[in-house]
Amino acid sequence: MADMLDLPRNDEGISTAVGLLKQRFGERLETGVALREQHAHTVTWIENQPPDAVIFVESTQEVQEIVRICADHRVPIIPFGTGSSLEGQVNAPAGGISLDFSRMDKVLAVHPEDMDVVVQPGVTREALNTYLRDTGLFFPVDPGANASLGGMASTRASGTNAVRYGTMKDCVLALKAVLPNGEVVKTAARARKTSAGYDLTRLLVGSEGTLGIITELTIRLQGIPEAISAATCSFPTVEAACNAVIMTIQMGLPVARIELLDALSVRGVNAYAKLDLPEQPLLLLEFHGSENSVKEQAQTFGDIAEEFGSEGFTFTTREEDRKKLWQARHDAYWASLALRPGAKGISTDCCVPVSRLAECVTAAQAKAAELGIIAPVVGHVGDGNFHTLPLVMMDDPDEVARAKTFVSWLNELAISMDGTCTGEHGIGQGKAKYLMDELGEGAVTMMAAVKRGIDPFNIFNPGKILLSDV
Amino acid sequence: MADMLDLPRNDEGISTAVGLLKQRFGERLETGVALREQHAHTVTWIENQPPDAVIFVESTQEVQEIVRICADHRVPIIPFGTGSSLEGQVNAPAGGISLDFSRMDKVLAVHPEDMDVVVQPGVTREALNTYLRDTGLFFPVDPGANASLGGMASTRASGTNAVRYGTMKDCVLALKAVLPNGEVVKTAARARKTSAGYDLTRLLVGSEGTLGIITELTIRLQGIPEAISAATCSFPTVEAACNAVIMTIQMGLPVARIELLDALSVRGVNAYAKLDLPEQPLLLLEFHGSENSVKEQAQTFGDIAEEFGSEGFTFTTREEDRKKLWQARHDAYWASLALRPGAKGISTDCCVPVSRLAECVTAAQAKAAELGIIAPVVGHVGDGNFHTLPLVMMDDPDEVARAKTFVSWLNELAISMDGTCTGEHGIGQGKAKYLMDELGEGAVTMMAAVKRGIDPFNIFNPGKILLSDV
Repeated sequence: MADMLDLPRNDEGISTAVGLLKQRFGERLETGVALREQHAHTVTWIENQPPDAVIFVESTQEVQEIVRICADHRVPIIPFGTGSSLEGQVNAPAGGISLDFSRMDKVLAVHPEDMDVVVQPGVTREALNTYLRDTGLFFPVDPGANASLGGMASTRASGTNAVRYGTMKDCVLALKAVLPNGEVVKTAARARKTSAGYDLTRLLVGSEGTLGIITELTIRLQGIPEAISAATCSFPTVEAACNAVIMTIQMGLPVARIELLDALSVRGVNAYAKLDLPEQPLLLLEFHGSENSVKEQAQTFGDIAEEFGSEGFTFTTREEDRKKLWQARHDAYWASLALRPGAKGISTDCCVPVSRLAECVTAAQAKAAELGIIAPVVGHVGDGNFHTLPLVMMDDPDEVARAKTFVSWLNELAISMDGTCTGEHGIGQGKAKYLMDELGEGAVTMMAAVKRGIDPFNIFNPGKILLSDV
Repeated sequence: MADMLDLPRNDEGISTAVGLLKQRFGERLETGVALREQHAHTVTWIENQPPDAVIFVESTQEVQEIVRICADHRVPIIPFGTGSSLEGQVNAPAGGISLDFSRMDKVLAVHPEDMDVVVQPGVTREALNTYLRDTGLFFPVDPGANASLGGMASTRASGTNAVRYGTMKDCVLALKAVLPNGEVVKTAARARKTSAGYDLTRLLVGSEGTLGIITELTIRLQGIPEAISAATCSFPTVEAACNAVIMTIQMGLPVARIELLDALSVRGVNAYAKLDLPEQPLLLLEFHGSENSVKEQAQTFGDIAEEFGSEGFTFTTREEDRKKLWQARHDAYWASLALRPGAKGISTDCCVPVSRLAECVTAAQAKAAELGIIAPVVGHVGDGNFHTLPLVMMDDPDEVARAKTFVSWLNELAISMDGTCTGEHGIGQGKAKYLMDELGEGAVTMMAAVKRGIDPFNIFNPGKILLSDV
């Protein structure tokens, strides 16, 4: 398949390393087919490329031991969190060892006064927020899936409230990671700010396990707001909705979430959850602040929305009602799949300057119609990031081909608008071919220079981010 | 001097390169002693190490030409903005060519809907804000000095309102830079978010010209708030002031600035500006938002301050009165110098977890007293970052020695508190020796691997960040 990276396997090295690691880790190293395939799960149309073994690691020191053995024998290592990545990040195109972090799931320290927490990489975002329940603090990044924090850092994840609280690049204060030479790196102190040399934290965040294997994260938390209000309203067009978003942000209204559903997504939600929202573009918002300020913010947004022809503006501060208002967004993924039973949903992830968003979404809708592809749209519109979800019958080669045409056309369109083909899912295997178009040769060779400087034998998650011929 | 890096000079290469560059750039290449010394100006006690020539560059392409010639002859290149860096970043310990960016001072594009701007690196922060005057937008990073944006990105600068708007790492969306091999790199698209491969933007921000020479910046702007309120109040102790700060931030109060002056700084300001503030620790705050919310925020803070024993809480939303309230902070640097006429002020830049801030500041005050050093303190306390300003008679070797003892003791103290020796000034030459203590061998060797991968002949600002023997 054109999407795939076909890398040579070092069979002899792999076999030696697996033998040595089996001696060391016993039953914590598994080689069953089902488990190996589950560790190459991709949530997309990229072919499953299982590792040769899976090790359930329990400490930084164990990771070091494994890295040293794998380095000696030139064997790939692929870190695995929960397997919710979307671009083949956990696939093993050259075989090798998958490191499963589900047992490294401890919260190591909470510092309420500093509003940070130190965790192992296998802690999931929901587990962390459950743990923090009584502290008045929360971890804001919400990519939808209950991903592990190590995985979220590795793909530079974000989601619905990045517009207010930032992405993983903003929320990770420091990392501990094992390098390809077996050394442990501490990327930063726990201070909130630093100018101490190269930003190794941000270099590892988003590097998808290709430079270092994260074994500990220090994460910045937020105070749970005194009050939350939610609002929804429908717009005549995607353009009107986007213009309302632009004005909202220009005015400095500190929205915590601002999400778009296109008419097709709304239709899906109506059918799925028995709602009767107008089948028009819908914005959903959330405001965080004091009792007074969340009301004021919602009202200010209501005024802006009206200027852009919105209808049915509703807002509330009651928790139950908020949940109801946001139900459309929470259900959007499953509701979209239910639009076409039996189809697989393949998520795109373009992010463009907000000024180009309406044009990009509208063009995507038209192109999907032209190609006969059903592709509902949801978007983190405050950031200019939106997902289309082509619903594809995978046993129909013609439809698969048309869906691929759509996805690659859309990625190139976003790039032509000074945007990116990936706002939050990462490059993995699926998008390596777009990186040159998006950033040019200078950036790709600079990334390759960094990779070679740190991982000269290309044993850390090979075949991800950079094409093998770079 | 122990602070200095003594690097070998490549006299032959330098002489050849200067000859070739003189032919190419004519009068835009200057070699006068005064100009060369001005381009190695360090604002500190680090010895002046002038470059061999200064070129006033005018385009990315010219920078590429210069880099190619210097690469051929292994000649150092040191980028120069306004010379306001504090740790010897513009010094030329191995000689070479200083690139002066003052003529690359154009604002290339403003995108009001996307709230970003594309600028050349010689634009200063004040010039940018003057340019943006009529757009309703502003650039928030304020390090005090009217630095160039290229320089601010290079040192990962921040300042008084980083607590709300972040540092240069948060405000730079994308960079164009020339690499040591002469290639031009575009680090990111103009989209607000990206997961497209390694974060080259953040790798260059804070790299102090050692990895790439920035020739264009895309910068995120903020909407000018509808209203601004300012508040000040005095506290019985630094600890009480810091505890008020911690509670303020835990409650999620979106302060835009929150600054501390210690009693000695207040005494300086009283004398300098004929004020009569109580000679006690003073907090100064600024709130940005709607008319209602800035009043509400100030009042909430007033309540918190009272809990921690504050006195004289004052707040206002009138611009004139705000300026008066903040005068103490604006005058602090000059007022501190006036405490001891003839002395040089040497700024420290520690940043610790906020929970340790009171302890760190109090210990610094005690140590200064013990060593007979006069060192007023100002701090960006919301981030845990504070500056002491030892006032040193440079012609008294014993005092200079005691001041050096103080500075290095304080840096090590901050490091022992899981903090950093530099929150916003950078490493330069002055702090290279602390990096190993702060982050350990793994981080330093990882930085060195990145440096070698990108600049194998060490021609970009050699002797900065990394000690030459790494």
